[in-house]
Amino acid sequence: MSRSLNDISLGARLYDRLEAFARHSEDADRLTRVFLSKEHRAAAEELLGWMRDAGMKAHIDAIGNVVGRYEGLVPNAPCLMMGSHIDTVRDAGKYDGNMGVLAALAAVEEFNKAGERFPFAIEVIAFGDEEGVRFPVTLSGSRAIAGTFDQTTLSLTDKEGKSLRQALAEFGCDPTRITDSARRRDQVLAFVELHIEQGPVLEAAGLPVGAVTAINGASRLSVEVKGTANHAGTVPMHLRRDALAAAAEMMLSVEARGRAEPDLVATVGRVDVLPGAVNVIPGLVRFTMDVRSPSDSARRRAVADIDRRIAEIAAARDVGIAITLTHEAAACRCDPKLIDAIGRSIARTGLAPMTLPSGAGHDAMAFARLCPVGMIFVRCEKGISHNPAEAITVEDADAAMRVLLDFIRHFDASTLTRPAEDRPAA
Amino acid sequence: MSRSLNDISLGARLYDRLEAFARHSEDADRLTRVFLSKEHRAAAEELLGWMRDAGMKAHIDAIGNVVGRYEGLVPNAPCLMMGSHIDTVRDAGKYDGNMGVLAALAAVEEFNKAGERFPFAIEVIAFGDEEGVRFPVTLSGSRAIAGTFDQTTLSLTDKEGKSLRQALAEFGCDPTRITDSARRRDQVLAFVELHIEQGPVLEAAGLPVGAVTAINGASRLSVEVKGTANHAGTVPMHLRRDALAAAAEMMLSVEARGRAEPDLVATVGRVDVLPGAVNVIPGLVRFTMDVRSPSDSARRRAVADIDRRIAEIAAARDVGIAITLTHEAAACRCDPKLIDAIGRSIARTGLAPMTLPSGAGHDAMAFARLCPVGMIFVRCEKGISHNPAEAITVEDADAAMRVLLDFIRHFDASTLTRPAEDRPAA
Repeated sequence: MSRSLNDISLGARLYDRLEAFARHSEDADRLTRVFLSKEHRAAAEELLGWMRDAGMKAHIDAIGNVVGRYEGLVPNAPCLMMGSHIDTVRDAGKYDGNMGVLAALAAVEEFNKAGERFPFAIEVIAFGDEEGVRFPVTLSGSRAIAGTFDQTTLSLTDKEGKSLRQALAEFGCDPTRITDSARRRDQVLAFVELHIEQGPVLEAAGLPVGAVTAINGASRLSVEVKGTANHAGTVPMHLRRDALAAAAEMMLSVEARGRAEPDLVATVGRVDVLPGAVNVIPGLVRFTMDVRSPSDSARRRAVADIDRRIAEIAAARDVGIAITLTHEAAACRCDPKLIDAIGRSIARTGLAPMTLPSGAGHDAMAFARLCPVGMIFVRCEKGISHNPAEAITVEDADAAMRVLLDFIRHFDASTLTRPAEDRPAA
Repeated sequence: MSRSLNDISLGARLYDRLEAFARHSEDADRLTRVFLSKEHRAAAEELLGWMRDAGMKAHIDAIGNVVGRYEGLVPNAPCLMMGSHIDTVRDAGKYDGNMGVLAALAAVEEFNKAGERFPFAIEVIAFGDEEGVRFPVTLSGSRAIAGTFDQTTLSLTDKEGKSLRQALAEFGCDPTRITDSARRRDQVLAFVELHIEQGPVLEAAGLPVGAVTAINGASRLSVEVKGTANHAGTVPMHLRRDALAAAAEMMLSVEARGRAEPDLVATVGRVDVLPGAVNVIPGLVRFTMDVRSPSDSARRRAVADIDRRIAEIAAARDVGIAITLTHEAAACRCDPKLIDAIGRSIARTGLAPMTLPSGAGHDAMAFARLCPVGMIFVRCEKGISHNPAEAITVEDADAAMRVLLDFIRHFDASTLTRPAEDRPAA
């Protein structure tokens, strides 16, 4: 379905506001907005004003979230919660995080203008700590809302030695009140986050939006390969125990296993070679592996297969290996009915519905135990993110707004699957 | 042929002298003896004394070589030149270089004791700069004797900013007289160097000595692989241009080509991966290649094959490549009749004759244009060298001495092939 340019005012407004909002930055010529900085405060204040202008009750909570509430047809109705983060990496793009917040705000502005209300409230939240740039912790804001904020992280310090506790106080927050932000399960019908894809899948498919199936789980491993360092000139090939040649074969097996099934990715990102001289056969190689999948069982199977293959290669080449699991995170599956509902909204907007997993982490993950979770991805140029070259088009912003508005108007919490209650600790 | 322990006095004497000679070191607890240091001077002085005691005329020449001459049956006869270097790497072994000098000296001591003289003179030279540790140049001493010393290197400086010219003057040498060391082609019948193997081939064969066929030529190349750096979570396998996976495939092709023919070795020693983060698909990889062979044509064919294979892999994976040749040295072939003569001496000593190439460089290379060149390799433990763990046995030192004595006693220059005269420059 083709549309003329004068139809894309929703997208143009969102696009222009994202441009303007990027001025809240540490530097004039590049976007850097870290958690609890004065730029973060200024962005939060501006957002508070826009939320109130859009008929929302709004405040900044004790962890620095900007929280706006648009009431439903009856007061105190449970809410459809939406949002994303307004902190950024250093030298960031303008859309990562910010787009999800300002799109949700723009949706409420539309409803407010038309006096449109729903059987549910809408809450829009701008989280302040998704990137984890300032303190060695991430998702502080979304975890506080989900009731899983870790109080011990208040003592973590930034590189100037300032604790999260101090930084919150200077931001104007009361760190003793963070638990007040936690919602009960009956207060939140679902959490839905709109976000740029940060990958090339939608672009390759020629589509502006897609429904996310899951935020991938991840395993990170460190592999050490131990051979024998020796003179590159004097040791014949058949007498070598070359740690790098062994590692190269292992790296290719990681790639091959990643390619063996859809939605699985496996990456070797870092390699250290010792001693690392042109004329010395490497004696020790360390490399990292990052394996992700929307399915935890598929991911575990892949890691087990890779481990087995690495052991076979090591045995055949008579080199030692040590494999260490350094990080593991379970996948966060999106609610199947939310995926379907987003797909139907995409279709009604005149686009082909497409589903895809999210390879990156998002605030939505924090809500997995509180409520059903959904995500809408928006195409970004070449999949580039965390970079000033991050780009979207006005047309895609418009498609995203139309999908989001349609989704909210058709939102029906009754079909969704509530996450299982946590069992009390034994 | 088995021998009892009390027959190995030649080897024991050489072994003990190598132990004692290692006291000429910068540090008390490890061996470091760099070119033109006071330790180098002390070692040279001791050697001068031993040479004179063995009936040789001896002096230190203008480039710091210790030169001893044992006259033949007639005065001023052309010489069989032998020797190696007495400079070391930092934290060195005791045998690299030093063994070749002290073995040649020990042979002359035997002849002098018995009043044994030959139709040729014997010269024993201890070169001072084979390792290139102090100045960014190597083989200064052997090149001066061969008449190919490069005068411009006199201005090169060590890390304290002292020039080679100054350092020579402080050592007691007159740098303006270096050309006096150069020999005419009719003065040197052959240059023969005894050296520890610095590799594992003799040990693997269970043999104490071997005849060297050639000092391998070497090509060093630097390969840059350019893909696209991207998020390890968000980019599906089929949309990646992973520079490291491509490089891994290339590294395995380097190893495979090295394995494809005997005496060829091919090594990837150094790898740099950018950006080098666990969660980022590598966008840029640089690695080095070191290819060596006793045959220059075999080496060139191997490099061409590897280049072609790298280009194929790059094309199949849609990554960019740039290959740069950073170093190239031709092989120095040992004289076939010298190889045979050394082999016959090994056989007469009761051992199986074995030939092998030298993967490392040696002073002997400097003589390739002056005279026929030969080398005798001695087994060292596990092939370890440039390391305090460098080790030989008394028995192997004895076998080496017996082979060397036999070789000198049977030396016949008439069968050797003189190198072609250099053509005058156009």
